[in-house]
Amino acid sequence: MKIYEYNAFPNPRRVRIFLAEKGIDGIEFEQVNVPEGEHRKAPFLAKNSFGTVPTLEMENGTCISETVAICRYFEERQPEPALMGESPEEKAEIEMWQRRVEQTMFNSISTYFHHGTPGLGKLETYQNEEWGKKNKEMFLDAMERMDAHLSDKIFFVGEKPTIVDITALCAIDFGGFVELSIPAELKNLTRWYEAMSIRPSASA
Amino acid sequence: MKIYEYNAFPNPRRVRIFLAEKGIDGIEFEQVNVPEGEHRKAPFLAKNSFGTVPTLEMENGTCISETVAICRYFEERQPEPALMGESPEEKAEIEMWQRRVEQTMFNSISTYFHHGTPGLGKLETYQNEEWGKKNKEMFLDAMERMDAHLSDKIFFVGEKPTIVDITALCAIDFGGFVELSIPAELKNLTRWYEAMSIRPSASA
Repeated sequence: MKIYEYNAFPNPRRVRIFLAEKGIDGIEFEQVNVPEGEHRKAPFLAKNSFGTVPTLEMENGTCISETVAICRYFEERQPEPALMGESPEEKAEIEMWQRRVEQTMFNSISTYFHHGTPGLGKLETYQNEEWGKKNKEMFLDAMERMDAHLSDKIFFVGEKPTIVDITALCAIDFGGFVELSIPAELKNLTRWYEAMSIRPSASA
Repeated sequence: MKIYEYNAFPNPRRVRIFLAEKGIDGIEFEQVNVPEGEHRKAPFLAKNSFGTVPTLEMENGTCISETVAICRYFEERQPEPALMGESPEEKAEIEMWQRRVEQTMFNSISTYFHHGTPGLGKLETYQNEEWGKKNKEMFLDAMERMDAHLSDKIFFVGEKPTIVDITALCAIDFGGFVELSIPAELKNLTRWYEAMSIRPSASA
């Protein structure tokens, strides 16, 4: 199996951390030169017509894109340790928080990057600066909200790290990259972030 | 079990169609008066601090929000008929298409509604008309792309309807509501839409 990725980006990192937390290795990684537009050229589009990384290529040639779909595949293939829940109730709670963190943190910081900063430069075919600024606000608001959620918790859901913590970690480090680090007064989020950052998976 | 919803909205409809396709009944539905802002008041926020509908309340009082998380709960509780896949490969492919349809169709038509039209009127605290217009274009492009995908298929993935078809159906009917119906030349999407629309679940 092979994963096409661009390893400086946050979505490929989500998959690498997911695999590291599950202890899955032996996957080949191939870099797609996104800054040079390789993801929009025919060879890669033949694998994923939507042109996104990461993309997982299975032995039989089937390709799966979308970060969480790739994670789902590995979760189903190797359920332990569960990063997406075990019981129906746990799976639902984790999916709820995963989507909340995606929408309010991950998507907003990504939108800020693409619209409120130079983003990917010549690859940005449309930018809306005002929308970028709004998403910066949304990201800052989300960090406050997540700080409150973590006031009595070690991880976002339950007693062990899940895909929610991975999504949040990658969002926050992306925030740091565009100079929107966690405000010092958000002590719960900072404590959680420091604990996640020293896990070996964080440098996967 | 009870689902809090506002039945004119597309996300609650996704859950109702999902339940109808699975043959699950006996769930109580309670309307939250979103146009009057009931979802932003303390009684509802105590159930779902994010203030979104639909929200599922279990017998023990636990509340789950986020449409797909609610669907996941019912899928795990009653796997047949599977609407989110059976094998790891199927689950991954369905999740990939579910996210593609969500992002390119469902989210774009929803964003157009909230930013490019009067949306929910006095409830809209921020609108970006230019971003709304861009999302209208994105929705129209996505319909073309999905039409091509459906050229040799009855459903989005596999031989039976899945959550992907449900998300796409609700996005397209939302498009019709804001006068962005399927263009007549998109014959595959039209054929698929007509087939989905006459299923009993479509009027759930």
